Amino acid sequence: MTVHLIKHAAKDADVTFAARVSTQGGESRFIEASDKDAGLINYLMRDRHGSPFEHTSMTFYIEAPIFVAREFFRHRTGWSYNEESGRYKELKPVFYVPGPERNLVQVGKPGAYVFEPGTASQYTLSSDTMAHAYKAAYSHYKLLLNDGIAREVARMVLPVGIYTSFYATCNARSLMHFLGLRTTDPESKFPSFPQREIEMVAEGMEKTFSELMPITYGAFQKNGRVAP
Amino acid sequence: MTVHLIKHAAKDADVTFAARVSTQGGESRFIEASDKDAGLINYLMRDRHGSPFEHTSMTFYIEAPIFVAREFFRHRTGWSYNEESGRYKELKPVFYVPGPERNLVQVGKPGAYVFEPGTASQYTLSSDTMAHAYKAAYSHYKLLLNDGIAREVARMVLPVGIYTSFYATCNARSLMHFLGLRTTDPESKFPSFPQREIEMVAEGMEKTFSELMPITYGAFQKNGRVAP
Amino acid sequence: MTVHLIKHAAKDADVTFAARVSTQGGESRFIEASDKDAGLINYLMRDRHGSPFEHTSMTFYIEAPIFVAREFFRHRTGWSYNEESGRYKELKPVFYVPGPERNLVQVGKPGAYVFEPGTASQYTLSSDTMAHAYKAAYSHYKLLLNDGIAREVARMVLPVGIYTSFYATCNARSLMHFLGLRTTDPESKFPSFPQREIEMVAEGMEKTFSELMPITYGAFQKNGRVAP
Amino acid sequence: MTVHLIKHAAKDADVTFAARVSTQGGESRFIEASDKDAGLINYLMRDRHGSPFEHTSMTFYIEAPIFVAREFFRHRTGWSYNEESGRYKELKPVFYVPGPERNLVQVGKPGAYVFEPGTASQYTLSSDTMAHAYKAAYSHYKLLLNDGIAREVARMVLPVGIYTSFYATCNARSLMHFLGLRTTDPESKFPSFPQREIEMVAEGMEKTFSELMPITYGAFQKNGRVAP
Repeated sequence: MTVHLIKHAAKDADVTFAARVSTQGGESRFIEASDKDAGLINYLMRDRHGSPFEHTSMTFYIEAPIFVAREFFRHRTGWSYNEESGRYKELKPVFYVPGPERNLVQVGKPGAYVFEPGTASQYTLSSDTMAHAYKAAYSHYKLLLNDGIAREVARMVLPVGIYTSFYATCNARSLMHFLGLRTTDPESKFPSFPQREIEMVAEGMEKTFSELMPITYGAFQKNGRVAP
Repeated sequence: MTVHLIKHAAKDADVTFAARVSTQGGESRFIEASDKDAGLINYLMRDRHGSPFEHTSMTFYIEAPIFVAREFFRHRTGWSYNEESGRYKELKPVFYVPGPERNLVQVGKPGAYVFEPGTASQYTLSSDTMAHAYKAAYSHYKLLLNDGIAREVARMVLPVGIYTSFYATCNARSLMHFLGLRTTDPESKFPSFPQREIEMVAEGMEKTFSELMPITYGAFQKNGRVAP
Repeated sequence: MTVHLIKHAAKDADVTFAARVSTQGGESRFIEASDKDAGLINYLMRDRHGSPFEHTSMTFYIEAPIFVAREFFRHRTGWSYNEESGRYKELKPVFYVPGPERNLVQVGKPGAYVFEPGTASQYTLSSDTMAHAYKAAYSHYKLLLNDGIAREVARMVLPVGIYTSFYATCNARSLMHFLGLRTTDPESKFPSFPQREIEMVAEGMEKTFSELMPITYGAFQKNGRVAP
Repeated sequence: MTVHLIKHAAKDADVTFAARVSTQGGESRFIEASDKDAGLINYLMRDRHGSPFEHTSMTFYIEAPIFVAREFFRHRTGWSYNEESGRYKELKPVFYVPGPERNLVQVGKPGAYVFEPGTASQYTLSSDTMAHAYKAAYSHYKLLLNDGIAREVARMVLPVGIYTSFYATCNARSLMHFLGLRTTDPESKFPSFPQREIEMVAEGMEKTFSELMPITYGAFQKNGRVAP
């Protein structure tokens, strides 16, 4: 998974200047966040005053398999996307295979699944099988292209484990909502059960967010990882 | 492709009662659309007063391949979705293969592609190749499941040509926006170049829409198929 | 305040049929919600699976003062509005004056205000002053209109306590989000401090919601009045 | 009216890097817009590929009367707001009175109004009447406050002509949609009839936009001022 911050206009002071227009009116520029701001940001987070967190913008470049992109793009409010298109370009043979730290076996029932490590042979078999499947699919894709079939038709045989790339722009509020749902974290007031692969992407975004807006991130953690 | 209207609260009169609150105030119930409404609806469409079209609701059940669902779910505003999950259930071996009326060959450059029919041998080859690819992918999927690998991992080898099913709820405004972008129609003021398969879904929705809200649909056609 | 349900397509079974497509796939129509559904709905609410609650639609007709409408229209996602226009029609002299049960005195500091009843003389004075102010404003409005000044200009002197009317369409998810923020309720996991007048509107909507979707409403209450 | 750009992450190259991920895949940073980009941006605008314009962010500080803010806040998608609150602070006695260049007389019927200048006496009368009305309203407001009535109650007598202040954050796509509806411009493919006062705010924002993203702005003008 690749997660790069491309550009941003997002710092803690953006939250407080927007919030202060409510109580003070008038224009506030060039304010750097201070200790006093930490209290205000924590109050906004705790009492779910979400709108001041929206005057921020972060654009990420992400490489992830299609099955991750499919989950990602379900986030509609406060998110903008542009993705690599299998209609306009030939897709490259880059595929996702779970690493040895990825639990492969699902135990339990819907809503209460637990994932456990597989046996050594399960790891070997799954890696081999996936590699075979990916190679076969891609060779069928190339066969169709070579016969003059349109890219948008040929791609139908490509698996959801193939990598895609996209830009995603969000604000601090929509990002926190995403993080609350797409990570598992002991601090969470509401538990979530994301697929591990989208959580890997979310972890990359979370790290960036914690660096850009440390006070906001601290308040998010402190208040149970619930987006305001 | 399957497109079924599941339920709705959408009729032409919904548009006019909402519009008349602007000019008359007060509550208007139980109004059936009349000839006079046709003029009002046409005026709203022409001058892009879009909000009165939003007080309507249509829920569709759709079966389509994943590559169609991926394009569909890019529509964010005024759309709600719930989709079959490859994490929670084993997916069935139902795949999309283009029919003989589907143009297979893409000519031109990005932004100005034209699709032309393939030769007979191209049809035979593409059908055969896709059938092979789908069978191979599904057998790898079953192999992984049988070895105890979690569904959410095993599905990575499944192609985007496999069918999924979902519910989509929209209003008349968001539906017209979708139709304007996902169909080709000589009446369109702005040409679009959708992939044929999502257009097939859009055509099914358009037929339903034209029956539920004939006056609104007529105004949409008359005004160049541009959502207000 | 006036809150009337105009039309709806919203029942508990709408939630469960949408949710079941995730785990079962395929089309489910004509299902009435059963005891088993109550468990599913509670699970969805608790674990914040919000999307199944969106396949519902409720349209309300509301009469409220402009200062309430201003707070109301801040709700953007999953809400559609059409409002009486002071540009297109002459507004009627109907104004809001707080009743005797409305606490008039604000004690405390921002974020922790408490409202307490006023003295008898405060009630008398405020009612009289507001009545005077409203009458004066409206007579200035009429003076401007009578002199041929455009309605959209003349209305500038009208107070935010004048009544307006509007249609608002939402779904169960966006309505629960609204209720969580615009009511005070001992069951709430997150306390809110709405102005009493918008809470009066919210209470009317909540009553309707509890009747249309009793199982969903029960789960909302049980899970701390936090929208999923 | 006051319109200040507070901060932004918005330049023409943001559009093209996002668009190119569709056709080229992969990450593109540090690209400055070139002549070749002008063609791409014009194509995206013309064929209504709107999403690449969303990876931009502009935050404005605006002072305008409440009746303008009411129209402004109807724009929901791609807009974030924080406004001065009459609940949390005492509002200042700053009011809007139309200047001599503002046409005061409305001629015609709904949907086809024309505004014409008033006579000299109409200007005098309207200015005087509005000044009287505003003063009376504000003195009633102070009377209520001085008697200990809560700010959120006292403000009910304040007119919609009083100034408020707010931050508004948008992206290039949502801003173009706003400009298309809230300005009158001979280049517009779809005519709009905004109230003059919100158009004054829109003109301030348009000027800023044209400087930040000149190529995008040129394509907007060239293609009939229709947001993609």
